[in-house]
Amino acid sequence: MKKLADYVVGNVERFGSHRMTREDVIEFASRFDPQPFHLDDLAAAVNPIFGRLAASGWHTASATMRMLVDHARQTGFTAMGSPGLKSLRWITPVYPGDVLSVESEILDARQSKSRPEIGLVEARTTTFNQHGETVMSMIATTVVPA
Amino acid sequence: MKKLADYVVGNVERFGSHRMTREDVIEFASRFDPQPFHLDDLAAAVNPIFGRLAASGWHTASATMRMLVDHARQTGFTAMGSPGLKSLRWITPVYPGDVLSVESEILDARQSKSRPEIGLVEARTTTFNQHGETVMSMIATTVVPA
Repeated sequence: MKKLADYVVGNVERFGSHRMTREDVIEFASRFDPQPFHLDDLAAAVNPIFGRLAASGWHTASATMRMLVDHARQTGFTAMGSPGLKSLRWITPVYPGDVLSVESEILDARQSKSRPEIGLVEARTTTFNQHGETVMSMIATTVVPA
Repeated sequence: MKKLADYVVGNVERFGSHRMTREDVIEFASRFDPQPFHLDDLAAAVNPIFGRLAASGWHTASATMRMLVDHARQTGFTAMGSPGLKSLRWITPVYPGDVLSVESEILDARQSKSRPEIGLVEARTTTFNQHGETVMSMIATTVVPA
């Protein structure tokens, strides 16, 4: 199992492919974010930010998490949880049919002072659409085995 | 329709009730966060942070969003989107059967300098479990009609 020392500060990886289907966009929004511009074409058309039906930002974040988890599994990395995010920005709307991918950069990797058996890895995750536009960017901390 | 002037800095509201069922916890994790401690009792039991099967933090965030959207609708407030979060902290694990609720405090409400037709409302949202423990806290900005 990979450990803290295997996380190299400055390392950048690009991976993932997640299609945001219209069905998934509407289903996620129906359950968790039922604002009109995530559910209804006409309501979205008059929204000055979206212009047409767009995915919930929480759906984009969750899809990004799925790519991160899949990539970690494929490369042998194991997380133990997360204390949270320093920031999260929704930059460009995500529309039905968009195919998302991810770039992850390790910003910091250190041993916990209070719990030396765990490490804390800080990474910037940038989510792109199929046009190469940044749709979301976040800085999150992950707990890993020290 | 309520507008920027209706958001009062310092105003605190408490609302919502969202049960995190075991089925929902596993289904969300299967789709978006398939780490072992969100899916499997035995894997969760040996995780030092969770100790037993726990919800994905993205599920907790999404459930919180649902409570925010429902409350906004009930009170006549309409958001137009969000540029993102200043911070998000996952503080206490959320376990199957937990019932979540929310406290929201308006921290700032101002007109956009670049787009005077919109307002930007910053709020701290705190999510509690049924024991009154804080499970999540975030500071988010919402776009509203000016």
